[in-house]
Amino acid sequence: MTATFLDRLFDAGLLIDTGVDGLYARSGTFEHIVDGIDAVVTAFGGADGAEVVRFPPGMNRMVFEKTGYMKNFPNLAGTVHCFCGDDAAHADIIAALDEGGDWAAHQKLSDIALTPAACYPLYPLAARRGPLPAQGRLFDILSYCFRREPSKESTRQQMFRMREFVRMGTPDEVMAFRQLWIERGAEMVKTFGLDGAVDLANDPFFGRAGRMLKNNQRQQNLKFEMLIPVESVEKPTACMSFNYHQDHFGTLWNLTTADGAVAHTACVGFGFERLALALLKVHGLDVAAWPAGVRAALWG
Amino acid sequence: MTATFLDRLFDAGLLIDTGVDGLYARSGTFEHIVDGIDAVVTAFGGADGAEVVRFPPGMNRMVFEKTGYMKNFPNLAGTVHCFCGDDAAHADIIAALDEGGDWAAHQKLSDIALTPAACYPLYPLAARRGPLPAQGRLFDILSYCFRREPSKESTRQQMFRMREFVRMGTPDEVMAFRQLWIERGAEMVKTFGLDGAVDLANDPFFGRAGRMLKNNQRQQNLKFEMLIPVESVEKPTACMSFNYHQDHFGTLWNLTTADGAVAHTACVGFGFERLALALLKVHGLDVAAWPAGVRAALWG
Repeated sequence: MTATFLDRLFDAGLLIDTGVDGLYARSGTFEHIVDGIDAVVTAFGGADGAEVVRFPPGMNRMVFEKTGYMKNFPNLAGTVHCFCGDDAAHADIIAALDEGGDWAAHQKLSDIALTPAACYPLYPLAARRGPLPAQGRLFDILSYCFRREPSKESTRQQMFRMREFVRMGTPDEVMAFRQLWIERGAEMVKTFGLDGAVDLANDPFFGRAGRMLKNNQRQQNLKFEMLIPVESVEKPTACMSFNYHQDHFGTLWNLTTADGAVAHTACVGFGFERLALALLKVHGLDVAAWPAGVRAALWG
Repeated sequence: MTATFLDRLFDAGLLIDTGVDGLYARSGTFEHIVDGIDAVVTAFGGADGAEVVRFPPGMNRMVFEKTGYMKNFPNLAGTVHCFCGDDAAHADIIAALDEGGDWAAHQKLSDIALTPAACYPLYPLAARRGPLPAQGRLFDILSYCFRREPSKESTRQQMFRMREFVRMGTPDEVMAFRQLWIERGAEMVKTFGLDGAVDLANDPFFGRAGRMLKNNQRQQNLKFEMLIPVESVEKPTACMSFNYHQDHFGTLWNLTTADGAVAHTACVGFGFERLALALLKVHGLDVAAWPAGVRAALWG
């Protein structure tokens, strides 16, 4: 049997199996690649003057709920549950653990959910500052994200890092921002020595009602992705995304422009793990043997 | 009313309130401080040749259970729960969300728990490689960690980063490692321009049974902490810890030395957020005005 790409990554020690599909530790070399990707993203967008915000891997559950994630992608969500019991409940847990029984009955939904996309926690923080300034706002954000899709495909991880630039302003401003980043994204792919193509996204909205949402998203050109072959050429991997949210978050959080209109928003996201895996797949697992131009772009 | 330190951090934009106590976003300046601390830790320990491993914020729940965290600190743990239902269950959730009811009934315990301490996921990965080599092993690890202790004290965050060096080998090897890092930790505190003192730890083991565990830990000198005044001088904050696990993890994971004895382990941990907050408290919120020596140590 041929070793899968994931097997080869494990064998090379670049990713380390934890016993849970899609939940991997990373080696120093893998992190070095991620640091290089991070630097390239900064090289492309750093001069725009974005405000830097870094998020922990969890978010306020009330914000998570209001964002609609449990309605659109319930199967991908992760909620954090905690124990609030007393000594007797603690004794129950110990007994259940010792006997291999269900010890989670005492775990209760907390006020924290795992962050599914780096920008979800940002909108209420921005709205709290009041109306946008005259030129709108631009943020540079990063978060560990969670999506519940256990898989043996290296590119489908349950916990992964996403860096984004998020633009808030008028429709013209945010659409121009998105177009600029679609062009920059294509340049970035060349810098990495990779082949990519931009296409409309097919987000996996849940259930029967989800079909309508997916069609709507595609018909309105709301989300594009940079697709790069990693696991296969037939099913390339979305390594960047370019999203226009219209007034969705502006309305939800009462975020307005300087002249009082509902703000529009757009974001561009970079999947650090997926970009690192694309580089490893195309240029090989021996980083020292990567093309000089790619090495120079990543690490100066 | 006097503004608390947390209020001042919010006002300066260094930490950003998410609406959940102990769950904060960080500004670019805060991250710049964390990067500097990370570099200082590398400067002290980088020449030791540790193997670098970086963990995602969640770990295999079976490992989490076996480590005993739910027995010792159930109230601090966070488990990740997911939805595995169908369209009908999805409809229940949507209805409950719209009506403000309890929508979490369909959330089930997953195979992932939030990582409470950076080194817990490491031991089974190390043991899987077989007996330790002749000189034992040394790891350099980092993880976002979770502890369920909502608080208005800036230093008590629910999600925070911990970097550790972990030594595995004979009792003499791991005790020498710990002693070396207690001395390096004191030097590091001076580098940061801070005052710290090493003392025995008082871990908050849960419930009635926990008292015995706490006494045992103290009587056997298993855990020391570097205490630095941040929120108050009377209750200084543990910003580093120096832990000797005896053969606890070695026995648990069947980790042996080259000659077949059960391995002993020790670790030193650095709380990045707490060290950053100590620097901000002592040197002030205007990073540009920090002493030149401290700035040079952090950022060259």
